[in-house]
Amino acid sequence: MNSPSDPVDGLFIRHGVAPLAPGPLDGLTFAVKDLIDLESTVTGCGNPTWAETHPPAAANAIVVEQLLRSGARCVGKTIADELAFSLVGENHFYGTPRNPLAPDRVPGGSSSGSASAVAAGDVDFSLGTDTAGSIRVPAANCGIFGLRPTWGAISTAGVQPLAPSFDVVGFFARDAAVLRQVARVFFPPQSGVPPLRRVLMLEQAWEIADPVICAVRGAAEDCFARAGLEVKSVNLDQLVSGEPGEDLFTWKTIFCGMQWPEIWSTHSAWLKAVAPPLGPEIARNFENVKNAGRSEYLASAMRRAGIRSRLSAILAGGVALGIPTTPSVAPLRGQVDYDRSGTGYLPRTICLTAIASLSGLPQLNLPFLTASGLPAGVSLVGGLHDDLALAEIASAML
Amino acid sequence: MNSPSDPVDGLFIRHGVAPLAPGPLDGLTFAVKDLIDLESTVTGCGNPTWAETHPPAAANAIVVEQLLRSGARCVGKTIADELAFSLVGENHFYGTPRNPLAPDRVPGGSSSGSASAVAAGDVDFSLGTDTAGSIRVPAANCGIFGLRPTWGAISTAGVQPLAPSFDVVGFFARDAAVLRQVARVFFPPQSGVPPLRRVLMLEQAWEIADPVICAVRGAAEDCFARAGLEVKSVNLDQLVSGEPGEDLFTWKTIFCGMQWPEIWSTHSAWLKAVAPPLGPEIARNFENVKNAGRSEYLASAMRRAGIRSRLSAILAGGVALGIPTTPSVAPLRGQVDYDRSGTGYLPRTICLTAIASLSGLPQLNLPFLTASGLPAGVSLVGGLHDDLALAEIASAML
Repeated sequence: MNSPSDPVDGLFIRHGVAPLAPGPLDGLTFAVKDLIDLESTVTGCGNPTWAETHPPAAANAIVVEQLLRSGARCVGKTIADELAFSLVGENHFYGTPRNPLAPDRVPGGSSSGSASAVAAGDVDFSLGTDTAGSIRVPAANCGIFGLRPTWGAISTAGVQPLAPSFDVVGFFARDAAVLRQVARVFFPPQSGVPPLRRVLMLEQAWEIADPVICAVRGAAEDCFARAGLEVKSVNLDQLVSGEPGEDLFTWKTIFCGMQWPEIWSTHSAWLKAVAPPLGPEIARNFENVKNAGRSEYLASAMRRAGIRSRLSAILAGGVALGIPTTPSVAPLRGQVDYDRSGTGYLPRTICLTAIASLSGLPQLNLPFLTASGLPAGVSLVGGLHDDLALAEIASAML
Repeated sequence: MNSPSDPVDGLFIRHGVAPLAPGPLDGLTFAVKDLIDLESTVTGCGNPTWAETHPPAAANAIVVEQLLRSGARCVGKTIADELAFSLVGENHFYGTPRNPLAPDRVPGGSSSGSASAVAAGDVDFSLGTDTAGSIRVPAANCGIFGLRPTWGAISTAGVQPLAPSFDVVGFFARDAAVLRQVARVFFPPQSGVPPLRRVLMLEQAWEIADPVICAVRGAAEDCFARAGLEVKSVNLDQLVSGEPGEDLFTWKTIFCGMQWPEIWSTHSAWLKAVAPPLGPEIARNFENVKNAGRSEYLASAMRRAGIRSRLSAILAGGVALGIPTTPSVAPLRGQVDYDRSGTGYLPRTICLTAIASLSGLPQLNLPFLTASGLPAGVSLVGGLHDDLALAEIASAML
């Protein structure tokens, strides 16, 4: 756990790179999560031993290249949770990036520094990665937009994997207009595809959330309506008819039944060969995945294929799910409940994030505030490749 | 280029692993391309320096785990082209795996040893990877089934990337029944989805192929008809209406405009830090990608999104494209035209393989024989997640 010292700057390595060409992002600045290659810097993945045992990147990750060739200027790299394996944002080695709207609370992770830098106004937008919520959770905690794109829609070349079946690269922005500008670089206009027209508020997702989060539901529904969206309520069993007894905790189990074995297949060789010092939370996480049975993968993959195919069909044609991004406001620094079993903070969070992670569908966090002024995130989960539609609707509602 | 010595055994590392559980693959043996992790062996990626500079795998790749837990027995690893960056199969360091049906010809790559071992009867099936054709081409050259699955349908955790937007893991089999058995492990039955019912023979693809390949088209159409499929002819402009002037050479350019930059983002750090000896073809390939402009990526990605979305829509609901897998029979060993520009063997091959690589759609090579008894591959490119349907139809037709 990070010491209760002062929060640190999310943008921890300043390394300016001028745009490679003028373009639609002229004049905008961005920062890059330290899991994403930036030419001639070491991609440290939030862990000092990783940085020591890997050569510097010799080329930019494709996603960085796309931004630099669209006119944006890179200003540096941001702190990440070690190997991206956390949703909290307390990096044992580099510190906890500040959460500007809630300085006594964690920024969320693993794209902690990228969310922090955007929320602090250090950059116009930033890149993150998301496997189990690593963009969505810090966006919600820090009160900014955060898009987890359709799985596969942005290249992961030059980006360190965690659990490849779920890993995506996405981005944060404070401003809906900037969100849209960046989205237009990556996602083509979907000709012939209906724009977003309906939001299905998923009741089981709201039931998982604290009352303080549910209290912003009304404001979110008002925003959706203002943007011209029809707002309806839906139950999980209407989405997954024929699968009696399915609930979001089951989806979390299916997700972890695939994510944990994938993480172990991705990282065990390096962990065994190098035996690196790890922060206590991350060490515990890797012990969990090491000891987790791998026998559930086959059945989980089959269940997941069903969820993906049903959700994709239901959300095709301009429909989105409306869910709370996280079940509570950001936890207080130094007081995070790291228990991954039971029904505490992390398990409930993964129940919510597993929806888009399992289905491969895009999810956009929209920033709201509680009555006491703390960030509270509400998300739209859209149909496959509805990434640009999500970014466009954000401009229309906020 | 490999010396004209005798062909070598595709299964070059014998390392038996007993099944981890009984299951539907009981009694079947398989081998693993040397880009895919097998616990306690080094994943050498076809290059001796890679093997020396990487620790042994500490866990199986997920795909290996799925097979071992379905009753299959692993017998070892197979030769791959270096870093999977070739379609030929002449490994400078480890030799050219034999092509059992055409011993004076190359097996095709990069999953050369996996195709060779299956064609030789050393194993019942084998795993390969495919970015630009590395399963499809060796399957066609060696006269066996080879499935490139829907992009993302099989986990790549524990598999070395090349160009992640296009990389997949798939498999080879001699026997249609084995192909179907293995497919059922990975792909769920698609309830509510129509079975394959129509094949659209893509004329522009056949125009690229040599007469000797076109001569098997009739036999392939007869097989399709016997399996109950309606066979029609289609032109590229019917698939991509509104994109005048688009042809398969354009698609190849779009594909290379993304694949080459992704390869450079994936491998440049290691190449620069280690400066490994490489075979002459692979060294040339990496020089090409190093010097290739990266500025085409943005435009290519947009074009690719359009191709993917149009082809997915056209092939949804039980429709497949019928194309030659390669433009010619396997080249003679030691006489391969390695030129990647112009209209020679490799460029024409990539025109054909780019269809599925760009669109993310599954492609199954079906083995046919020319009049003189050489393998000639015909492929079905199916709709998204029609993997099992492709494997099922193979049993019905051959």
